[in-house]
Amino acid sequence: MALPTLEAMTTADRRPLGPVDSSRTPRYAGPATFARLPRVDEVGGTADVAVVGVPFDSGVSYRPGARFGGNAIREASRLLRPYNPAQDASPFALAQVADAGDIAANPFNINEAVETVQAAADDLLATGARLMTLGGDHTIALPLLRAVARKHGPVALLHFDAHLDTWDTYFGAEYTHGTPFRRAVEEGILDTSALSHVGTRGPLYGKQDLDDDAKMGFGIVTSADVMRRGVDEVAQQLRERIGDRPLYISVDIDVLDPAHAPGTGTPEAGGLTSRELLEILRGLASCHLVSADVVEVAPAYDHAEITSVAASHTAYELTTIMARQIAAGRASGGA
Amino acid sequence: MALPTLEAMTTADRRPLGPVDSSRTPRYAGPATFARLPRVDEVGGTADVAVVGVPFDSGVSYRPGARFGGNAIREASRLLRPYNPAQDASPFALAQVADAGDIAANPFNINEAVETVQAAADDLLATGARLMTLGGDHTIALPLLRAVARKHGPVALLHFDAHLDTWDTYFGAEYTHGTPFRRAVEEGILDTSALSHVGTRGPLYGKQDLDDDAKMGFGIVTSADVMRRGVDEVAQQLRERIGDRPLYISVDIDVLDPAHAPGTGTPEAGGLTSRELLEILRGLASCHLVSADVVEVAPAYDHAEITSVAASHTAYELTTIMARQIAAGRASGGA
Amino acid sequence: MALPTLEAMTTADRRPLGPVDSSRTPRYAGPATFARLPRVDEVGGTADVAVVGVPFDSGVSYRPGARFGGNAIREASRLLRPYNPAQDASPFALAQVADAGDIAANPFNINEAVETVQAAADDLLATGARLMTLGGDHTIALPLLRAVARKHGPVALLHFDAHLDTWDTYFGAEYTHGTPFRRAVEEGILDTSALSHVGTRGPLYGKQDLDDDAKMGFGIVTSADVMRRGVDEVAQQLRERIGDRPLYISVDIDVLDPAHAPGTGTPEAGGLTSRELLEILRGLASCHLVSADVVEVAPAYDHAEITSVAASHTAYELTTIMARQIAAGRASGGA
Amino acid sequence: MALPTLEAMTTADRRPLGPVDSSRTPRYAGPATFARLPRVDEVGGTADVAVVGVPFDSGVSYRPGARFGGNAIREASRLLRPYNPAQDASPFALAQVADAGDIAANPFNINEAVETVQAAADDLLATGARLMTLGGDHTIALPLLRAVARKHGPVALLHFDAHLDTWDTYFGAEYTHGTPFRRAVEEGILDTSALSHVGTRGPLYGKQDLDDDAKMGFGIVTSADVMRRGVDEVAQQLRERIGDRPLYISVDIDVLDPAHAPGTGTPEAGGLTSRELLEILRGLASCHLVSADVVEVAPAYDHAEITSVAASHTAYELTTIMARQIAAGRASGGA
Amino acid sequence: MALPTLEAMTTADRRPLGPVDSSRTPRYAGPATFARLPRVDEVGGTADVAVVGVPFDSGVSYRPGARFGGNAIREASRLLRPYNPAQDASPFALAQVADAGDIAANPFNINEAVETVQAAADDLLATGARLMTLGGDHTIALPLLRAVARKHGPVALLHFDAHLDTWDTYFGAEYTHGTPFRRAVEEGILDTSALSHVGTRGPLYGKQDLDDDAKMGFGIVTSADVMRRGVDEVAQQLRERIGDRPLYISVDIDVLDPAHAPGTGTPEAGGLTSRELLEILRGLASCHLVSADVVEVAPAYDHAEITSVAASHTAYELTTIMARQIAAGRASGGA
Amino acid sequence: MALPTLEAMTTADRRPLGPVDSSRTPRYAGPATFARLPRVDEVGGTADVAVVGVPFDSGVSYRPGARFGGNAIREASRLLRPYNPAQDASPFALAQVADAGDIAANPFNINEAVETVQAAADDLLATGARLMTLGGDHTIALPLLRAVARKHGPVALLHFDAHLDTWDTYFGAEYTHGTPFRRAVEEGILDTSALSHVGTRGPLYGKQDLDDDAKMGFGIVTSADVMRRGVDEVAQQLRERIGDRPLYISVDIDVLDPAHAPGTGTPEAGGLTSRELLEILRGLASCHLVSADVVEVAPAYDHAEITSVAASHTAYELTTIMARQIAAGRASGGA
Repeated sequence: MALPTLEAMTTADRRPLGPVDSSRTPRYAGPATFARLPRVDEVGGTADVAVVGVPFDSGVSYRPGARFGGNAIREASRLLRPYNPAQDASPFALAQVADAGDIAANPFNINEAVETVQAAADDLLATGARLMTLGGDHTIALPLLRAVARKHGPVALLHFDAHLDTWDTYFGAEYTHGTPFRRAVEEGILDTSALSHVGTRGPLYGKQDLDDDAKMGFGIVTSADVMRRGVDEVAQQLRERIGDRPLYISVDIDVLDPAHAPGTGTPEAGGLTSRELLEILRGLASCHLVSADVVEVAPAYDHAEITSVAASHTAYELTTIMARQIAAGRASGGA
Repeated sequence: MALPTLEAMTTADRRPLGPVDSSRTPRYAGPATFARLPRVDEVGGTADVAVVGVPFDSGVSYRPGARFGGNAIREASRLLRPYNPAQDASPFALAQVADAGDIAANPFNINEAVETVQAAADDLLATGARLMTLGGDHTIALPLLRAVARKHGPVALLHFDAHLDTWDTYFGAEYTHGTPFRRAVEEGILDTSALSHVGTRGPLYGKQDLDDDAKMGFGIVTSADVMRRGVDEVAQQLRERIGDRPLYISVDIDVLDPAHAPGTGTPEAGGLTSRELLEILRGLASCHLVSADVVEVAPAYDHAEITSVAASHTAYELTTIMARQIAAGRASGGA
Repeated sequence: MALPTLEAMTTADRRPLGPVDSSRTPRYAGPATFARLPRVDEVGGTADVAVVGVPFDSGVSYRPGARFGGNAIREASRLLRPYNPAQDASPFALAQVADAGDIAANPFNINEAVETVQAAADDLLATGARLMTLGGDHTIALPLLRAVARKHGPVALLHFDAHLDTWDTYFGAEYTHGTPFRRAVEEGILDTSALSHVGTRGPLYGKQDLDDDAKMGFGIVTSADVMRRGVDEVAQQLRERIGDRPLYISVDIDVLDPAHAPGTGTPEAGGLTSRELLEILRGLASCHLVSADVVEVAPAYDHAEITSVAASHTAYELTTIMARQIAAGRASGGA
Repeated sequence: MALPTLEAMTTADRRPLGPVDSSRTPRYAGPATFARLPRVDEVGGTADVAVVGVPFDSGVSYRPGARFGGNAIREASRLLRPYNPAQDASPFALAQVADAGDIAANPFNINEAVETVQAAADDLLATGARLMTLGGDHTIALPLLRAVARKHGPVALLHFDAHLDTWDTYFGAEYTHGTPFRRAVEEGILDTSALSHVGTRGPLYGKQDLDDDAKMGFGIVTSADVMRRGVDEVAQQLRERIGDRPLYISVDIDVLDPAHAPGTGTPEAGGLTSRELLEILRGLASCHLVSADVVEVAPAYDHAEITSVAASHTAYELTTIMARQIAAGRASGGA
Repeated sequence: MALPTLEAMTTADRRPLGPVDSSRTPRYAGPATFARLPRVDEVGGTADVAVVGVPFDSGVSYRPGARFGGNAIREASRLLRPYNPAQDASPFALAQVADAGDIAANPFNINEAVETVQAAADDLLATGARLMTLGGDHTIALPLLRAVARKHGPVALLHFDAHLDTWDTYFGAEYTHGTPFRRAVEEGILDTSALSHVGTRGPLYGKQDLDDDAKMGFGIVTSADVMRRGVDEVAQQLRERIGDRPLYISVDIDVLDPAHAPGTGTPEAGGLTSRELLEILRGLASCHLVSADVVEVAPAYDHAEITSVAASHTAYELTTIMARQIAAGRASGGA
Repeated sequence: MALPTLEAMTTADRRPLGPVDSSRTPRYAGPATFARLPRVDEVGGTADVAVVGVPFDSGVSYRPGARFGGNAIREASRLLRPYNPAQDASPFALAQVADAGDIAANPFNINEAVETVQAAADDLLATGARLMTLGGDHTIALPLLRAVARKHGPVALLHFDAHLDTWDTYFGAEYTHGTPFRRAVEEGILDTSALSHVGTRGPLYGKQDLDDDAKMGFGIVTSADVMRRGVDEVAQQLRERIGDRPLYISVDIDVLDPAHAPGTGTPEAGGLTSRELLEILRGLASCHLVSADVVEVAPAYDHAEITSVAASHTAYELTTIMARQIAAGRASGGA
């Protein structure tokens, strides 16, 4: 006698394998993979887009807790459905998106953790997957960019964040959540002709912070700029700047106002609304997005999943962009 | 010797009877009727606008708890005052608004509950009252619309919600919080020439959801549309579409962004601000509003009454519209 | 045509009128009178036990918010049922218990508020009711005791509290939540041969606090004493001390440990469990309880009604004691 | 090139397969199976003890939300380690314990859900597994007992709960969270010579509730009894009553005081401490426990996992008892 | 041997003394002075801008708790850094800003508290400092304005608030959080040619409220006006109205929407975003700001510092305006 | 003209300098030093007991956040008063207790942080102070013990904790919050004839954990033992074991049940009540306590200061023991 099918799984003959069928298994039931998608091992060990968690927050300078962020986003992503009307696409039908689990990073040794994340990202990218990474704190953007650059060469960077994250060192540490993009520029893994911060705001240590940042090549669209120019103009400017370069998008959830993202470590007033963030991302659907991350969700400070719902929608839009391009690439004979 | 008047009640010779006088009884004191208004039995058993609760949430598909929503809105409504400057009207002076208490619906039998709600709504409408209903989950919109249509014939519908709520069945159930408007269209109780969703956003099950919805006659103003067009243009378009048809407005509080309404069952990022919602409603003051509801407030997920304060203001604007029309109708000799 | 009965009310021919029938109206539905009992005006204007709220907290020295306490206790009391197995009694069948609403006290003038509370308590007691008062901060115990003493003469006092509340003045104010029992002793309205604090703990300003307290006649059963001696021995000692004197019980909810009552203004670690408090009260069922209060519930600091559920059970036990004595008095021809 | 091992899994040659190694993968990383144990499909499709979730709460009469309970307990169970010093046993080494996922029950049809749960439980039991079920509301105890009785015949029942759960119907529904044990007695699937409630407290509807309960054969150890007698005496009395009968233990987490379990639907003051509950369970280690459940964890009302940590420890003790007996059975040649 | 320097202090020879160096002492360490600035006594007893707390909330009409507001803002201000890019200024380098501690106001006597606040403000202003006051409830604006007017004569007032705060009396009290600006107009301490409310919204007691307010000279920019006109147009209109008059800015944090400021006493839906508030303030950088306050932060209703972070940024912008003018005054030979 | 005394400070001629006078400055006003005591620099740079914070939590293995613990305890300690009736002593009058501020430890380098803490502790001890340390995570106990042992030689250790904290390494790190006491034993800085854990409970990795622990010399009083034996017997056994050895007490707040201490990183059900902890400590008043710590308070998981109030009382009892011995030492001519 067979073990009962406790949960209605997607039928095996449907390719790609999509999420658990919510009309048969309630969305609150079953394990919390991203968007209730299959695990990578359930789809043969490889995926077009691998959603991977990095539960690591030893690089934070204020409120810790982003180590619980990835799983919180997964929980909130139970509410996602398979068709994205804003992009008129069914991402999980266009490409095989699957949950690759978590990278086990050492919480007591930042440098070792950075190496672990890079090695795991290298391996995942080597399978042909694009990465949709769920942080963790922003420290992890560095090893992720290293792995992406190893595959694609220096990439354009679009960085949504209240902060610049181009500081040098903090308490003598070169790898923290405030430094990944300075390191990345120093290492030559970013295409410095197309680096942008969006949503920047709040006090800095000094004007030198801005000067250094500009010298590295970053352009800044502040949170107030988004309000004044509107999302469509901002998206257009970003598209022009990015062009057809391979692009990495890194979203620190604190780019949102604390009202929209209380669950984060270094909140700054005056941020974006979640609607603005999502609309700008949708405006970038034509860009050549090679991988992305959403970081700095700290659930201990969240309430009723305000933050993790916003983060799950953010990851969903990013995944949709990647899935559409993968499908388009396949249609045109490429990858 | 007489029992002391423990609470300063409105003087009996003032018609209509208004709320408890906050200059004599602090707003945090006394029972939490809507806006501290009298109960229907205190105003002779009938009211022009009856505020009625429907503590029922057995139709929800994700986070339950809206059974506590109506009373949470009433608690938050203690902060409402009698003059509405945005509409330049004192609604409780223009018409007798009173609290009709709760409809006792069976939590274990959705079909029976739907019948109970309809019967109670029929009876209330039969007294001449318009209904300002406080949910409860969105399942209740169906019996409310049935009762309204029995009195007014098919009505125009303005539906504020993140979701379409025109799905067919869910787990075999035809009455759930995701299906009321499909049922209503099927039953012919809506005027399909004037059906609108406002605030729609977030993923769907498939493109067919949109096609089905359009076939039923719905127009959609997405949350992003509201941001792009502005509230005045949206309100004008809605007014034109609605014309002078009898109108029912149903507000699922999840039309607001989770920042503005964390206390709800199926939150979606990228929603309206409470200011946008209130301003659109104010822009509809000339419409012939015959009844309305505010649903899906789930207090267990609320914080500091963010959600229920927004819902109470929503109900207040809707009540003001109805009260003004009642007064105008009386002034012109009608009802 | 008649307005529908929206809520299943108790049948009018049952005396006393009991709570709303939970088998017909779910407990989360309808207005939040204490234990879903009728209002005093629904039972003819008088009751044997009048449950009355005093939303007042201008006498607090630390965290304010007890002005919302009475209504929070009423909300939590929806869960109470009519039979008390611990005392083997159905209090609402033994005596007419009804909700007398709130006393409207001036938040900006403590002295005036004290007078208002006393006047209202005088009037309620004059109808023959015993008072089950829901605070509010502890300041209100003074006017309540004044009214009780006006009727019964000096009364025995059983005071559950982390604190002594026999301080003199605070910032020049003689009426605060730390001073009611000193004032009461000074005014001669307490029977100083039977004064007890139970649950006392935590630091004091000086040893003089204890000396003063003892001189006023108070005996102290500390929270640690309750742990060491057990509830039965404590109850017995209290019964012996109280004898058949008319007794007033005042329960500051901070007598409970912060684990059991986080929602209060001046929490002290090391307190009673709710089980201990309830068991001691049950051990006093034979005492001649003439009125009682439960105070200092500050809902803004509560979570999931931990505190207000404990307070509602406390009020329920106290009400049961009073109802049993009323019934016994009637049976024996007295009152 | 192979996909990286993102998470350190237990080595395949170790039998039984135990939890993920916390020294290699931090406990906050990876999917939240119970105690980080393997899934049933990872251990060959069968397990000695199957931990199974039932996300269903349509049978609740007050605060809903237990549909999220099972996954909350799993999250909290990340903190469990493999050796249980209180029982001096390593349960996951003694028997194969694995996570069987969730049973997908229809939220809109209680009767169908009851059937679904029973069918799934039948199938799991048929594989030879004992069930450690994570609720969900208490409605599910009925189909679980049906399945257990189908295998073992009428079983002894040990029921930890604030409430009796032997009520008859509620709003006409025979299957709710207040009725499972009356139904079970009526169906003859309980051994009425060994039925016990532990932790009972709080008001009832009437004395008849107690009489009915006693007639069904239940003995009651109230929460106050536990305080007065101590856990060792209580455990001994329970052991004597249970003897060597096949035993089912059902733990409604509201048996704990609201301080220890705020996250539940019908809290009652005066409950057990988590230490008392765990110690009583440990005192029953010699009983012939055939299956067990922990129900009524409602995470929306929990704080900082107070409730779900207590529930996870409860399930851990129950699992340990079962694992020890399985190992002992194997050692003696039985099952 | 000397006591270790437990905290890296700013070097004594740097003038003005700035905040603790975050590169040596983590921002979460050390005492919570505003922005981690030195205390006034550490900078020689006087400061150019004195940040002073007024822990007083006995003037509130609904939710109390603002007595804890000042310290909550200070805690949140740990995240502020010394360079303000939005105003391109390093305020703590331009002027000596220091934390003057709290004014100890009597919680039991509003009139005495008003006098205490005025006396302390007089003394602080007499040292040459401008005041950046952290409330406390809005009652304190009156004594602050009295002190400011004593020094500067009648001042222009820019008042950000959901409410008018020009009511007359409440429960007979002339000094409450709803009356300070009526009192101030009556006392002749405001320049009635330049009085503005910004962010006003929500119901009033009657149209007379608006008429009275207008008669006093106030102009109103509603919250909806801000949305329709945009922050730049609003700021320009305010600048024109204010001209070069000495200006006092009073910010009731409830000017923000409850999403952006849940932690306040009388929330109203439909408010400003924190971005709008900050941008309007930045648009007023050229105004002659003589002192300012931020009031009505009630931390018990806040979550994850959403409100106090917004308030700390508000105070930071106001402080920057004052510091720039002080520096400009010095540069031009004035003060 | 002089700057006003904004806060009523203790008069300078009183020795030792005690806390701010709460009858003149409300307890919620002013900076949050421990118990509102003066800073060390205000009492001449040295103190008999130095209360010092260590905001460091990079050694935690699960929920981080204890970096905010020390300041949370200080905030909660505003409620402490100067006389301790449980020990019949006024600790702040018996000895100079003062707040030494925070030790700035590097969050990104555990080894450096351990050195920093040790150096600062060495320096503080060198001034003659005993240390009352407020964590921070348990990692810090190691450098604190090193410093204490450098002064006193190997000390007896009384360790209140749910966990043993004698594990070896974790992820290769030798200094984490699970390893301090193994390290300390290895380093020979503990008197292995008098090592005790109290409150131990919950699962372990294996039986070897207990064997290793016993070999190091630890005795264990489990949480269940405390319930069975009672606090007095436990305290007596501990006193006998400790004798007159110099004693260090380390209190991990998770020794308390999650009901009493939700705000911590690795909660375990079945813990002590705060009353038990405080009573055991009071029973140790005669021991020769040379320094102590309270660690692992993680405020992000706390609610309404339940945890930090308990921790502040714990530190108060420990401080009282030290102050009494200092005074006794002085009286007898020693130190």
